[in-house]
Amino acid sequence: MSLVNEKPQTLPQTSARADATALARTVRGEFPIVLALRHAGTRTLTLRYEVQGPADAPVVFIAGGISAHRHASASTEFPEKGWANELVAAGRTLDPSKRRILAFDFVGADGTLDAPIDPADQADAIVALLDALDIDALHAFVGYSYGALVGLHLAVRHPRRLRKLVVASGAHKPHPYAAAWRALQRKAVALGQLQCADAQGLSLARQFAMLSYRTPEEFGERFDALPEVVNGRVRVAAEDYLDAAGAQYVARTPVTAFLRLSESIDLHNVDPAQVAVPTVVVAVEGDRLVPLADHVALVEGLGTRGSLRIVRSPYGHDAFLKETDKIDAILASALK
Amino acid sequence: MSLVNEKPQTLPQTSARADATALARTVRGEFPIVLALRHAGTRTLTLRYEVQGPADAPVVFIAGGISAHRHASASTEFPEKGWANELVAAGRTLDPSKRRILAFDFVGADGTLDAPIDPADQADAIVALLDALDIDALHAFVGYSYGALVGLHLAVRHPRRLRKLVVASGAHKPHPYAAAWRALQRKAVALGQLQCADAQGLSLARQFAMLSYRTPEEFGERFDALPEVVNGRVRVAAEDYLDAAGAQYVARTPVTAFLRLSESIDLHNVDPAQVAVPTVVVAVEGDRLVPLADHVALVEGLGTRGSLRIVRSPYGHDAFLKETDKIDAILASALK
Repeated sequence: MSLVNEKPQTLPQTSARADATALARTVRGEFPIVLALRHAGTRTLTLRYEVQGPADAPVVFIAGGISAHRHASASTEFPEKGWANELVAAGRTLDPSKRRILAFDFVGADGTLDAPIDPADQADAIVALLDALDIDALHAFVGYSYGALVGLHLAVRHPRRLRKLVVASGAHKPHPYAAAWRALQRKAVALGQLQCADAQGLSLARQFAMLSYRTPEEFGERFDALPEVVNGRVRVAAEDYLDAAGAQYVARTPVTAFLRLSESIDLHNVDPAQVAVPTVVVAVEGDRLVPLADHVALVEGLGTRGSLRIVRSPYGHDAFLKETDKIDAILASALK
Repeated sequence: MSLVNEKPQTLPQTSARADATALARTVRGEFPIVLALRHAGTRTLTLRYEVQGPADAPVVFIAGGISAHRHASASTEFPEKGWANELVAAGRTLDPSKRRILAFDFVGADGTLDAPIDPADQADAIVALLDALDIDALHAFVGYSYGALVGLHLAVRHPRRLRKLVVASGAHKPHPYAAAWRALQRKAVALGQLQCADAQGLSLARQFAMLSYRTPEEFGERFDALPEVVNGRVRVAAEDYLDAAGAQYVARTPVTAFLRLSESIDLHNVDPAQVAVPTVVVAVEGDRLVPLADHVALVEGLGTRGSLRIVRSPYGHDAFLKETDKIDAILASALK
């Protein structure tokens, strides 16, 4: 990985105020990097980040699932809701008035990189970002889902760049059943592409993914209604919800981004013994994508550097974004 | 439901021997019935059955999942392997030399009925079959998966036609999460049908379904290999297996049959208090389609008529066809 010798340039239209005054707290920027990808040679890519909080505060990097991005939470400058809005907020452990919160768009998220992306590539891109922002070491890296995998690679490849790692709903390797589930989502996209119905294929993939993010317990509560026969077809209670989830996802996600980041989860593989950073592993009982047993195996492999926190939740894999009080309490203790 | 006044006609090409001599033990037949369907008016349909075993032996009806059919097990007359070959066999509880084993093709299985099919319709069709074969009452009805739902309807609507019911991996109503899973399979078929890629859509649907029939434990054992990058795409370890399962299913299943029988599972709904027949419920711990809790609720609703047997198996919903020693032992006790 090599970094083009160029300091980040903030986007003129959105962060002019941030440039103009030291009081501005949230900055967005983007800059080109040259990255040696594990599976696709050396490429020039655009890295996009957002940083929120005092310049002298300890920096916490936060990374989420493959649909997460650089906008973690609302700010004066960027008031729209972020993907971790309930966790990065005043009064929380990740209070942007006390900690400097850094996030980025995953490499591949803009859909312009149509090649296999290893999660280790993301870790290298993060180091390029830290260099560009003159950040020697992160106070902590908080990774959830795909972000957890990226955090593990960061701790293996660049252990001096972070002091603590929090890994939520992610293990050292993908579970073969979850990998099969993702492979079928990618096949749904391929089937859509065959028909020139890219949006329908991606929507179906997302809907199928939703079943892996949530749990039967939640569906049993929410969708316990009789099916209807509509135009001669049976329609079950959860279909409106799933259709809406699919449409929402299609509206904001390039097909290539989904495919390559989904693949990237399955390329993940880390030896826990090589993770040279104190690590808190957060597992959710009933997570259908990353079983509790895999989190336990990760913690065992971490030895004295690892500890395990278990959350009970009907939200399964999505609990990190739903059980925000419980997660905040765990972060408070982990980042102390 | 009304039965056309016509005795079953055995298929000339396959069962000539069965017609020719009383010694022949297995007979296939088909005949037309007029059935008043719950959701699609009155239709004339062809009913296809197979019966194996001595004419004077107690009759046991066996019905399986939506891909099961009238050929439960191999016989001299029809030597190809049946869908319940390990359960309907010499030395087993369902020994066709001691019991007369009856099975049929589900209404809709031939793909000619493109309308919603209620599982209660199947129960009415079975009564038409019993009438045609001069069978007053079944010694037992053994239903697995969709067959279990049909058995429950038979016990509610026609309790005098069966003395015992065995319900394996099926409850009084579908779980909303499983219903959502099936709805997405039907959407995969619809996506394929957009531009005449019916086979690919059906294959994808079947592959989705396979994940619900099996368990993460089994996949963890069988497919714990690193993914490969093939032609620039990530391919995970289970994909060969899933592709083969999809292709095998497509080769033997009309798209319409899959759609209508899949829907039929979601139209199922029975009040356990109305099941007026002694019933043994067989549940598999870890069944991802029909949770143990739903079987427990069914047995509670059955009151003194119900009892519960729990099987532990890494095969989940498919355990009935995989854990044949355990299932046979349960059948021995249930049919005593």
